[in-house]
Amino acid sequence: MSATLTQALDRAKSNRAAHLNQYTELLAMPSISTSSAHKADVRRCGEWVAAQLRAANLSRVDVMPTPGHPIVYGEWLGAPGKPTVLVYGHYDVQPAVVADGWDTDPFTPTVKGDYVYARGASDMKGQIFAQIKALECLTAGGPPPVNIKYLIEGEEEIGSENLEDFIDAHKDLLKCDVVLNCDACIEGKDQPGITYSLRGLAYFEITLRGPGRDLHSGRFGGSVRNPIHVLAELIAGMHDANGRVTLPGFYDKVRDLEPDERAALAKLPYSDQQWFEMTGSRGLYGETGYTTLERVGARPTLELNGIWGGYTEEGAKTVLPALAHAKLSTRLVADQDWRDIEGQLRRYLEQHVPADIAWKLHMHSGGPGAIMDRKSKYMQAAVAALEDVFHKEVHFTREGGSVPVVGMLQEKLGVDSIMLGFGLPDDGIHGPNERQYLPNFYRGIETYIRFLTKLGV
Amino acid sequence: MSATLTQALDRAKSNRAAHLNQYTELLAMPSISTSSAHKADVRRCGEWVAAQLRAANLSRVDVMPTPGHPIVYGEWLGAPGKPTVLVYGHYDVQPAVVADGWDTDPFTPTVKGDYVYARGASDMKGQIFAQIKALECLTAGGPPPVNIKYLIEGEEEIGSENLEDFIDAHKDLLKCDVVLNCDACIEGKDQPGITYSLRGLAYFEITLRGPGRDLHSGRFGGSVRNPIHVLAELIAGMHDANGRVTLPGFYDKVRDLEPDERAALAKLPYSDQQWFEMTGSRGLYGETGYTTLERVGARPTLELNGIWGGYTEEGAKTVLPALAHAKLSTRLVADQDWRDIEGQLRRYLEQHVPADIAWKLHMHSGGPGAIMDRKSKYMQAAVAALEDVFHKEVHFTREGGSVPVVGMLQEKLGVDSIMLGFGLPDDGIHGPNERQYLPNFYRGIETYIRFLTKLGV
Repeated sequence: MSATLTQALDRAKSNRAAHLNQYTELLAMPSISTSSAHKADVRRCGEWVAAQLRAANLSRVDVMPTPGHPIVYGEWLGAPGKPTVLVYGHYDVQPAVVADGWDTDPFTPTVKGDYVYARGASDMKGQIFAQIKALECLTAGGPPPVNIKYLIEGEEEIGSENLEDFIDAHKDLLKCDVVLNCDACIEGKDQPGITYSLRGLAYFEITLRGPGRDLHSGRFGGSVRNPIHVLAELIAGMHDANGRVTLPGFYDKVRDLEPDERAALAKLPYSDQQWFEMTGSRGLYGETGYTTLERVGARPTLELNGIWGGYTEEGAKTVLPALAHAKLSTRLVADQDWRDIEGQLRRYLEQHVPADIAWKLHMHSGGPGAIMDRKSKYMQAAVAALEDVFHKEVHFTREGGSVPVVGMLQEKLGVDSIMLGFGLPDDGIHGPNERQYLPNFYRGIETYIRFLTKLGV
Repeated sequence: MSATLTQALDRAKSNRAAHLNQYTELLAMPSISTSSAHKADVRRCGEWVAAQLRAANLSRVDVMPTPGHPIVYGEWLGAPGKPTVLVYGHYDVQPAVVADGWDTDPFTPTVKGDYVYARGASDMKGQIFAQIKALECLTAGGPPPVNIKYLIEGEEEIGSENLEDFIDAHKDLLKCDVVLNCDACIEGKDQPGITYSLRGLAYFEITLRGPGRDLHSGRFGGSVRNPIHVLAELIAGMHDANGRVTLPGFYDKVRDLEPDERAALAKLPYSDQQWFEMTGSRGLYGETGYTTLERVGARPTLELNGIWGGYTEEGAKTVLPALAHAKLSTRLVADQDWRDIEGQLRRYLEQHVPADIAWKLHMHSGGPGAIMDRKSKYMQAAVAALEDVFHKEVHFTREGGSVPVVGMLQEKLGVDSIMLGFGLPDDGIHGPNERQYLPNFYRGIETYIRFLTKLGV
C-alpha cells in the first residue's frame, strides 16, 4: 500500500468525529428543491457544498446558475495522462415534515445508535459528502491521484429539469473518462453490490372519447360504445397469456441476458417470501421464462400507472361516460430506444381502437436505460475497492428503476457511470425517518479513497 | 260526450290564464330536495301542493312526515264500484343556478313564446300540476268519475330514499286498481306515446387489491400483478364479440320481444343520424341481432359507469398501484330479477380474479324493471284519451331508463302504472334552461280529464 493511500485512510479514520459533525451541518439545511419557500435554503446548501469542494483543494469551483436551482461544478485537472473522473451527485432533498410520521425533526439530524436520522441522510447528502471527504483526505497530503470533476445538481428530486440543457451547453467542461455516480445503494449492511444496469422509461397518457358528452346509461346504454369498455379491452390486449407486452416491435431490440449474467443473478440472495413482504402482494407474476430478479432487472415491462373515467365519487351515478383516460409507462432495457415506444403504442392504438372512438396519445417523458461494462478497468477498480473495505465478494445487480442521468451521460458524453454509494434499501428515502447507517458512511469514505487511488495507478 | 266531460273541458279551456298563473307560482318555489338549505322551501312546496289538492275537492289531504321530506297524500273514495286510481308524482326538483348556463333565473319562471322556462317546469311540476287541475275541473261540477288517491313525494330527485318504507307502511292506504304515473314524456310535440316498459337496475362497485401499498413501478414492475391490468381484463371479459353480457345466467330470465312488439318498435320514428346527434357518438354499437331501439328498450345491458386507480393527477408518477376500482351497472328487462345479478357478478369474479388479487363487490342499489299490459282497460283508456286530444295514433314505446317507483308499485301493490305525462325529450330536464311546451301543458289537462272520465264509465 502506498504511503499516500495509508495517510489518506489514516486521516479518514482520525477525523471521523469532525466528518460526522460537518455531515450533520449539511443535513440541517432544508434544501427542498420542490418548495419555492426553500429556494434560498437550496442555494445556501449549494454554496456550502462548493465551500467543501474548495476545502478539498480543487482548482476551480463554481456555483453555476440554471433557470432553476444552481449546479455546483468543480475540477482539478493537474494529472495529465491519468483518467478524468466526473463525480455526479445532488444536494437537494425531498420534502419532509414531522407530521409525515417522523420521530424526530427531519432537519435536526439525530444520531441514535449506528444511524443518523434526517431528510437526505441517505438520499444523498451522506453519499456525496463521503465522496468529498475522501477527496479531502487524499488531497491533504498532495495532489489527487486522478483528474477529477464534480457535477452536483440541486434539482434531482424534481426531475433534474435543467440538467440536460446544462450538459448540452457544457459538453467540453464535463468531458471525462468515467462517471462516479454516488446516488446509489449497496445491498446490505455488510454486502457490497454494484448496479450495472438500469431500466429506461417511456411514460404515456391515453385519452379515449366515445359520446360527445356524458350520457344517461339507461336512456342510451346498449346503443353506443362506452370508452371505458374500449380502454379496458386495449389494456387487456397489451399483454399476452405469457405476460409479454404485445406492442408491435416491443422486443425487437431487447438485449438478451448473457449466460454468465443469468448465473450471477441466480446466485444473488433472493426469496419469494421476502418479495411478498416487500410488496404486500400475495403472489408473483410476470413474463414467463424469467426469474423475479430477471424480470425486474433485465426485462422490459409495461405498467398501467393510473386510470380514470366516468363517475368516481361516492355513491352511484348512472352515467355512460364520454371520456376514459389511462397513464401507462414502459420500463426499457438495453438496447431499446425509448423514442421508439411512442410509435409502437401509436400503431397498437391505430390497429385496435374502433372507428367510433376518438383517441389521443401523449408522451409525458422518456429516458434511456443503461448497461455498464462490468469488465472495464473503472468497474474493476470499484469492485476491488469495495472488496478491500468489506472483505466480501461484490454482487453485480441489475436495477429495475431508472436513473435518467446515467443513460443521459452515456448518450451525451459516451461514458459509463460507476454506481457507487452506501445507502441501504431500508433507509426510508422519500419517507419518514430517513437514515444513514454510519459505519457505512465511514466505509464509504474509505472506499472512495481506495477507488480513486486505484484509478490513478 | 257527457255534459260533465264537456263542462270540465270548458272549464279547463276558460281557466288557462289562471292555471298558468298558478303553475308559475309553483315553479317559483325552489323545492330542491338535495339541498339542506332548501329544506323549508321543499316543505312549503309540499304544503302548497296539498292546498291545491284540497281545492280540487278531495275528502282527505295530509302532508305526511318521513325521515326526509314529507309525502303529500290525498284521496276521494266516494264512488263504490268504480276503479281506484293512484296518482303518482313528485314536487321536488333538481338543483339549478344561473351559473350552470341558464338564460333566466331558474326560479323566476319566464314565458317565452310557447314555452315556460324554469327548473321543474317539465320534471315534473308541469305534469303533476296539470293532473291536479284536471281533477279540479272535473270536481267543480260534481264528484270525480273514479275513486282517486295521490302519492306525491318530495324526494324523487334524491333517489326516493323514504318511499319504499312509506309504501310498506301504508299498503292499505295506497291500495288501488291502477297507478297514473305523471312523471313521463310524450314522443314529440304532436306525437303522443306511452311507455309500457322500463328497465330495472343493479348498480355495483368492484375493488381490487394487488400489492399491499403503491409500489415503485421501476423497482417492482414485472414482479407482481397490477390490479389495473386485472380490472381491465375483467371488464374486457364482461362482453363477448357479439356485445352480449357474459355474466353466468344473465340472459336466463330475459323475456323475448313478441313479434308484434318488434313490428311496432320498427315503425317508430328513428334515424341513425338523429341518434348520432343526440349522443355525439360517431357510431352505434351493441348486442348484435337487435335494432338500436330494441337494444335500448328491450335488451339488458351492462355499462361501466366509472373507473379509477393509481395516479390520476396532472403529469406522471411511476406507481404500480395497490388498488383499482370500478362502478358498473346493469339495466334489466322483464323478467330479470335485479336481486339475481349480484350473485352472477360474484360468480364471474370468483371464476376470473386471479388468486393473488383480493377483491370486494358492493351493491349500491337495485330496482326492478317493469312491463305493463298494453291491452288493459286502463292502458286502452289512456290511448283513447291521447288520441281524442292529439288526433294521432299513439306510439307504444319501451324506455331504456329506470323509474324505480313503477316496478316498486308493481311488486308491492300488484298494479300497473300508466305512464302519462306531457314533457318532451328536449325539455332540458336536469340541465340549464329547463322548459315546458305550454300547448301540451293544456293538452295534458284535457287528456287527464278524458282519461279519468273514461275510467269512470
